[in-house]
Amino acid sequence: MSNYAFGIDLGGTTAKVGLFTTSGALLEKWEVPTDTSNQGENILRNLAKAVKTKMAERELTNADLAGVGIGVPGPVKEDRYVPVCANLGGWGDLDVSDRLSALLDGVPVKTGNDANVAALGEIWMGTAKGCSNMVMVTLGTGVGGGVIVNGNVLCGSYGAGGEIGHIPVNPAETASCGCGKKGCLEQYSSATGIVRCTKLLLEQTDEPSVLRGKDFAAKDVLDAARDGDKLAVRELQQMADYLGIALASIAATTDPEMFLLGGGVSRAGDVLTDAVTAAYQKFAFHASRNTPIKVASLGNDAGIFGAVRLVVGANA
Amino acid sequence: MSNYAFGIDLGGTTAKVGLFTTSGALLEKWEVPTDTSNQGENILRNLAKAVKTKMAERELTNADLAGVGIGVPGPVKEDRYVPVCANLGGWGDLDVSDRLSALLDGVPVKTGNDANVAALGEIWMGTAKGCSNMVMVTLGTGVGGGVIVNGNVLCGSYGAGGEIGHIPVNPAETASCGCGKKGCLEQYSSATGIVRCTKLLLEQTDEPSVLRGKDFAAKDVLDAARDGDKLAVRELQQMADYLGIALASIAATTDPEMFLLGGGVSRAGDVLTDAVTAAYQKFAFHASRNTPIKVASLGNDAGIFGAVRLVVGANA
Repeated sequence: MSNYAFGIDLGGTTAKVGLFTTSGALLEKWEVPTDTSNQGENILRNLAKAVKTKMAERELTNADLAGVGIGVPGPVKEDRYVPVCANLGGWGDLDVSDRLSALLDGVPVKTGNDANVAALGEIWMGTAKGCSNMVMVTLGTGVGGGVIVNGNVLCGSYGAGGEIGHIPVNPAETASCGCGKKGCLEQYSSATGIVRCTKLLLEQTDEPSVLRGKDFAAKDVLDAARDGDKLAVRELQQMADYLGIALASIAATTDPEMFLLGGGVSRAGDVLTDAVTAAYQKFAFHASRNTPIKVASLGNDAGIFGAVRLVVGANA
Repeated sequence: MSNYAFGIDLGGTTAKVGLFTTSGALLEKWEVPTDTSNQGENILRNLAKAVKTKMAERELTNADLAGVGIGVPGPVKEDRYVPVCANLGGWGDLDVSDRLSALLDGVPVKTGNDANVAALGEIWMGTAKGCSNMVMVTLGTGVGGGVIVNGNVLCGSYGAGGEIGHIPVNPAETASCGCGKKGCLEQYSSATGIVRCTKLLLEQTDEPSVLRGKDFAAKDVLDAARDGDKLAVRELQQMADYLGIALASIAATTDPEMFLLGGGVSRAGDVLTDAVTAAYQKFAFHASRNTPIKVASLGNDAGIFGAVRLVVGANA
C-alpha cells in the first residue's frame, strides 16, 4: 500500500521537504540547502539523497510511496518540464519529473510551479479548504500567483498563467520591473516593492517617520503603519491600491470565491487585509465586491502540502 | 432522433433565432422583436411562439429537438437563473430555462450570458475553433467578455466571471462608468467609449480632424484613423492602450491561447487588431507576449451558435 508521499518546495536558498501520509498528515519536515553552483547540477541529486535517507530511516520502500511532488520557482510545462529558473543559477531546460524519478528508482514524480503548488496546498488543507475557485497571491521578494479553477491549477497556454505579479497596474511608471516591463504589480506590492516605494516617499517629502534615516525591511514599514506612522500608512495605502486594482482585474476575469494572501508580507495580518479589502472594494465590479480576502494559513508549509497534492490529488 | 436545436441570442431590440442541426449547421435564422414593456413579461412567450411556429413550418416535433439554448444580456447562474437584465427593462429574477422549457412543452433549455455564449460559439465553429483556452472580448455598446478555460465557459463565483468591461484600467479617471466605478475598460474601448473619448480630444485641442463639428459614431472614428486622421489615430491608440492593459491583465491570470475581438467595433479589422496587438505587447508578460489577437469570425451569429452549443456540447 502506497500510504506515504514526499512534498518538496524548492527555493533559492533551501528546499523544504516534508513526509506526509497520502491523506495529508504532515509527519515530518526539514530543509536541504540548495546548491546553485554549476547551474544547479546537484539540485536534484541532493533532493533524491534526502528522500532516500529519510526512506531508509523510516524503513520505507518504493512500494510505500504514492510519489514525490515538487514545486519549483519558475515556469513548468505539463507537470514536468522546467525551461529555466532565474533564481536557481539558471537551472532548467530539463524534465524534472523524469530526472528525479530516475534518481529515485522509478518513484512517480510530478512537478509544479511553486506559487501554483502553494495555492493547491491551501485549497487542500488550508484557509481555502474545499474552495474550487480561488486565487492565491504570494507577496514575497516578488509577487507570485496561483489561480485555481474548478479545483485545478490553471497553468495557461504559454507559461504566463497566474503570473499575477506582472499584471500591469500603473501605465505611468517609469522604473522597470525585473521582467523588463514598467508598472507591474510586483514593483509595488512585493517586499522589495514596499521598501522601494517607501524610500521614494521618504525622498519626496520631509515628513517625519520612524523609518527615516534607517535601514528597513518591508516588515518594518508594515509594523510602522500598524503603529500609525503617517508615511508608512500612506505607503501601505499605495501598495494596497495597486494590489486592489490587480485583484479587481482578476475578479472581472475568473471571479474566484476567495482571494488568499500568502508569503512573508502577508504575515502583517489584519493591517494588510483591511487595507487591501478597502482598496479592492473601490475597484471591484459590484457582483464581486464582497469576495473575501484572507491570509493563507499554511504559511511556509503551503508549498510542501501542495506538492504532495500533485501526486495524491483526485486528479493525480 | 434529436437532430435539431434552436439557438437564441436575446438582445435589447431584437432576439436572433437560429435553427441548427446538432452538428452545428445553421439551417435558417431570423429575428424577433424584443418587447421590453411591463418588465419584459412577453419576452419568453414571444420566443416560444417563434420557435413553435418554425417547428410547425418545418414539421418538427419535440422529439426532433436536442433542445433550445438562449443567451441573455445579463448575469446567469447555473445555466438557468437570471437575476436582472438592465437592458431589458429590468426583466429577470426568473429561471429562464425552466420557464421557456415549460412554454415549449418540456423541450430542454439552457441559458447563458450572451458574451459567454458568443465565446462558446467561436470555439465551436469560429476563428478559435478547437481552442480550449480562449478569451473573447465583445466591443459593442458596452464591453463584454467570455473566458473559456479547458473548453468551458468560466462563469465565476459571484456572477463577475468574464466581466472584462469592468477591469480597472485607469485609476486616475474622474468620470463614472455605468456600473458606478471609475476607470473601467468599457469607458474607453466600447463604441460609446470611443465616441466619448474622441469628443474629449476634440474639446481639448484645436487640432484639425474630419470629425470636428460632426455628429459621429465609433465606426467613423475608426474609419478616420484608417485614413490617417491624426486625432482619430490618437484616439485609436488610446483605446487600444486601455484594451492592451486589460488583455495583459487577463494573460497574466488565465493565459489564453488566443484573444478574439467581437462586436460592432471589431468590424474595423486590421486597423484595430494592429493597434491593440502593439499595445498588448507593451504591457504583456514576456511568456505571453505573442498571444494572437484576432477578429471573431461568426460576427452577429456567434451568439446563436454558442447558444446551440449549450445544448449540444460535449458537456451538454
